[in-house]
Amino acid sequence: MTTYHRIVLASRPVGPAAPENFRLEELSLPACGAGQVLVRNRFLSLDPYMRGRMNESKSYAAPQPLGATMIGETAGEVVESHHPKFAVGDEVVGLLGWCEAGVCDGAALRKVDTTRVPLSAHLGVVGMPGVTAWYGLNRIIAPKAGDTVVVSAASGAVGSVVGQLARQHGCRAVGVAGGADKCAYVTGELGLDACIDYQAASRDGGLDAVEFARRLEAAAPNGIDGYFDNVGGRILDGVMARMNAFGRIAICGVISAYDGTPLPLKSPQLILLSRLRLEGFIVSEHLDVWPQALAELGAGVASGRIRYRETIAQGLASAPQAFIGLLKGRNFGKQLVALG
Amino acid sequence: MTTYHRIVLASRPVGPAAPENFRLEELSLPACGAGQVLVRNRFLSLDPYMRGRMNESKSYAAPQPLGATMIGETAGEVVESHHPKFAVGDEVVGLLGWCEAGVCDGAALRKVDTTRVPLSAHLGVVGMPGVTAWYGLNRIIAPKAGDTVVVSAASGAVGSVVGQLARQHGCRAVGVAGGADKCAYVTGELGLDACIDYQAASRDGGLDAVEFARRLEAAAPNGIDGYFDNVGGRILDGVMARMNAFGRIAICGVISAYDGTPLPLKSPQLILLSRLRLEGFIVSEHLDVWPQALAELGAGVASGRIRYRETIAQGLASAPQAFIGLLKGRNFGKQLVALG
Repeated sequence: MTTYHRIVLASRPVGPAAPENFRLEELSLPACGAGQVLVRNRFLSLDPYMRGRMNESKSYAAPQPLGATMIGETAGEVVESHHPKFAVGDEVVGLLGWCEAGVCDGAALRKVDTTRVPLSAHLGVVGMPGVTAWYGLNRIIAPKAGDTVVVSAASGAVGSVVGQLARQHGCRAVGVAGGADKCAYVTGELGLDACIDYQAASRDGGLDAVEFARRLEAAAPNGIDGYFDNVGGRILDGVMARMNAFGRIAICGVISAYDGTPLPLKSPQLILLSRLRLEGFIVSEHLDVWPQALAELGAGVASGRIRYRETIAQGLASAPQAFIGLLKGRNFGKQLVALG
Repeated sequence: MTTYHRIVLASRPVGPAAPENFRLEELSLPACGAGQVLVRNRFLSLDPYMRGRMNESKSYAAPQPLGATMIGETAGEVVESHHPKFAVGDEVVGLLGWCEAGVCDGAALRKVDTTRVPLSAHLGVVGMPGVTAWYGLNRIIAPKAGDTVVVSAASGAVGSVVGQLARQHGCRAVGVAGGADKCAYVTGELGLDACIDYQAASRDGGLDAVEFARRLEAAAPNGIDGYFDNVGGRILDGVMARMNAFGRIAICGVISAYDGTPLPLKSPQLILLSRLRLEGFIVSEHLDVWPQALAELGAGVASGRIRYRETIAQGLASAPQAFIGLLKGRNFGKQLVALG
């Protein structure tokens, strides 16, 4: 292995992200110096937050530089190590980006145990998305048994964990997902109490607010105490209108806005009328919870109490199309790219 | 005293509240039974929240019934008592509504000490509005020294306390108020660091977002860590755009929406991008903080560290016009009605 492929940001999207915003390149592998580790990536994680990094506009992180490797979590195998904590053959998770291999400081890697949790799951349910679900549910929504918790993008990498954890807290858990297949998975394999198909509640290309409200009322007859929001937009509006007094809304993502102009929030006065708490968060700013969250999630997966599904694209070159599909909801569960 | 006057809700407003929504009536005084107290009111408090009660739509409280006495805090003097905790001549605060006198359970009254805090101030800075300020600032915004705190309706009953308490916490305190007189009062007598005149930043009857942003940047050069929101609408939009990461927004009122259709929130994605927390609250649901808050506010007023101003209308019949003026920002400081 002397060369590797990577994908860089070629241009910033105007409107939806498109294949021409990305460029595949071949480079020579850099030398692996003191304290560094050379990793061959097996899986690349694709996550909606990456869309925000492609813009130049204000975000919580610096924008992705043009011409640099697209940011991203990776799982792979140590090929060469000059760091005392890593040996050749170790399986590790890192942030090497959209590339087949890379050199990084050992301090930026986390060794993972794949005896009970497969390597790929360390990028999903037992990785950043899982901890995101854990944090938003436990630290912001903080549900009590008997509460009703709603989660959007309910079959996705984050949402699927939120819904299952809410059930384990003794809550009524209601998902929102796009399409009958995803909804069947959410209420079937994931065990949620109900799932609303927002596509079936849409008309003329947009959510039909009256129809969505009707379905939400049926799915959450006692109102909603916690909402884990991955999407924003009209679904957030609809859920807010049904929140109970003192409800908590964890704002984790705004998928509806990533590819265009964010929609306004229709009824902010509900924050006062229903005494709601809305809180945005980024899981990488709460590193203190990761050890506990990963331990709980890993035990849940190992015991079968937490289920997950993956959509795996093959080969680095497939990453842009897989990512564009993710933003449109074409994936099912965690979207990954398998490398070599 | 055998009869008294009261004002009832005659009809629900369509659009702005108007004089014909109210009706003055004369009634016989009811008998004062066991456990009850007859109070002659000296002051009636007018507060923006009352506008919401005039509607039939969803609110945190039941709507004001048609034909019943308008709700409201009152301060007065005990005329007859069949309750062991009250004697004739005691000064008390209660919730008797827009009326000259009334009979109520002693348990619904609070005796107040007017030796160091005048009776009227127990309806304002050392009453419900003051505790509202105290709760939102201390329990939701929870500012640290060096933070920048912004408050809207900054010269009003609630806002004026927020700004002064924020200064006492060592914060940079910035007010938003309507008109040069109010702004001069906010930075002069109240001692805030800056005050933005939203009327001067308005054009064509609405806030000029660019001009408001420019003034806000000058007034809060290091960004905003806490916002005490009494108004919602375009001012909330403008402040949100300048919030620092992990900023807290206490949602206390939506004056901009009370008389018409609430405006949407322009950029809800900022909740995620800036990891904000927005929380609506009603001070009557946090009775546990009242003793501490009232003690601190009373000491502040007695020592002169907390200043306040009152606008006092004369006579019960003036209450509707005074209330309508309050919703339009025509008052200066706490709006009261003096009775007999």
